[in-house]
Amino acid sequence: MTLETLSTIRSHGGTQGVYSHASTTTGTDMTFALFVPDHAPGTKLPVLWYLSGLTCTHANVMEKGEYRAACAEHGVIFVAPDTSPRGEDVPDDPDGAWDFGLGAGFYVDATVEPWAKHYRMRSYIEDELPSLVLRNFASADLTRQAITGHSMGGHGALTIGLRNPDRFRSVSAFSPIVAPIRCPWGEKAFGHYLGDDREAWRAYDACALLDDGLRLPDLLVDQGDADTFLAEQLRTDLLVEACERNGQKAAIRMQPGYDHSYFFISTFMAEHVAWHAERLKA
Amino acid sequence: MTLETLSTIRSHGGTQGVYSHASTTTGTDMTFALFVPDHAPGTKLPVLWYLSGLTCTHANVMEKGEYRAACAEHGVIFVAPDTSPRGEDVPDDPDGAWDFGLGAGFYVDATVEPWAKHYRMRSYIEDELPSLVLRNFASADLTRQAITGHSMGGHGALTIGLRNPDRFRSVSAFSPIVAPIRCPWGEKAFGHYLGDDREAWRAYDACALLDDGLRLPDLLVDQGDADTFLAEQLRTDLLVEACERNGQKAAIRMQPGYDHSYFFISTFMAEHVAWHAERLKA
Repeated sequence: MTLETLSTIRSHGGTQGVYSHASTTTGTDMTFALFVPDHAPGTKLPVLWYLSGLTCTHANVMEKGEYRAACAEHGVIFVAPDTSPRGEDVPDDPDGAWDFGLGAGFYVDATVEPWAKHYRMRSYIEDELPSLVLRNFASADLTRQAITGHSMGGHGALTIGLRNPDRFRSVSAFSPIVAPIRCPWGEKAFGHYLGDDREAWRAYDACALLDDGLRLPDLLVDQGDADTFLAEQLRTDLLVEACERNGQKAAIRMQPGYDHSYFFISTFMAEHVAWHAERLKA
Repeated sequence: MTLETLSTIRSHGGTQGVYSHASTTTGTDMTFALFVPDHAPGTKLPVLWYLSGLTCTHANVMEKGEYRAACAEHGVIFVAPDTSPRGEDVPDDPDGAWDFGLGAGFYVDATVEPWAKHYRMRSYIEDELPSLVLRNFASADLTRQAITGHSMGGHGALTIGLRNPDRFRSVSAFSPIVAPIRCPWGEKAFGHYLGDDREAWRAYDACALLDDGLRLPDLLVDQGDADTFLAEQLRTDLLVEACERNGQKAAIRMQPGYDHSYFFISTFMAEHVAWHAERLKA
């Protein structure tokens, strides 16, 4: 599994790289961004994963996320994967919609063709990419990991965090889709990727996983109350209820006036990095 | 002179707006970005101008510049104008090159047709836009202004700062073109915009203006030493010499490993904002 370095740029006292590799999981080339703060030789740094939202690649948060200053300050590696497989033989939404297909892998392993062949973002994030990072970045300490994400990527962070409680010391999210089995984005995507058996969808629904007994070590969520996707798609209220119902420790904060954009994410990014760093170093 | 609000978005405890107006100076519509931190009613905030580089619009620094956290912390309004007039009847580089014409106004008032009709970025930045900001943003205190910029915009900040010592309390720049009359970008642009009389070019050359006796109140410059434009176009060495020769107080810092991109600019943006804020509040 060879890693190709597409670019490395010095920024905020560290190295912002973009890397590509042939993924055995998705059967496509996959690209990701990874920031390593300067560190003494031999030092191991904890790793914070960031999963992006619908339509994004690795590049959106790399350009607009404002995470590097905080990651350099706290000595945290930041990894931003892509949101779906890509390539000429990867099927896309037949109508070209942006909420399904390319840029919209929803962090599931699809079980229905034609999606099942390439759309395996769950296994890619849970297994292949951490393994690749471990082998290629000597400073990455994978005994100390945390995960966050935005919107569809917030859904990814919550569900991957819930299913892997031993891997992540802390989980946070920006405006996550908290109950995809009960919102139009999720119902469309899961119907295609996973088929009609709605019981199979529960493994990819944060609120359902909480009800099914899974727990997060700790949870921080920020949600803008001027987010136009809040009422129909994101449904933060359902996560608040699920946490209360199941005794899940969580700080779920409504942020007045903020929308769904990187202008919102970047506002609270440094706080999330610091919150994770505190738990990664505990 | 009516101002049209294209968008306002909450970010970092303030409002990031994008505005458009019919400019009497350029004879075109002009767009700019302006960030106002939250403030008590009636409070006046100092204004930091940021002039962008070749190919940029108001949007590049707004998305990638990472200035909002620092501006909110220090209570500074941040204004980012466009880099040239735009529109169907605005002439562009005949070969479509990116270093002249659209996105490359070089902050001069062109004197040669067909450029002279619209390319009047000096007067736009020096006269029309400050007047517009004063009338439309009640919190903007134009008795306290500072200016910075990147590359071509660093050239703009230096020369506009030198020619207007009473207007700006402090001037800084990121990888500025310090001597456009002695580099290929500047010679091409000034030859077109200003014609063959090289004496007329001196009003737009920071090193020449220093030699001609103009001074800045204070100067901070950051320049990456891995910047591929450094040796041929930017020539930081000439600014160092001109400051020493003329007794201009300046902190000109070479930053090891940094390039010409927003990954560099964003790294030092918070420091520049804090440096200006200290002088604006003195």
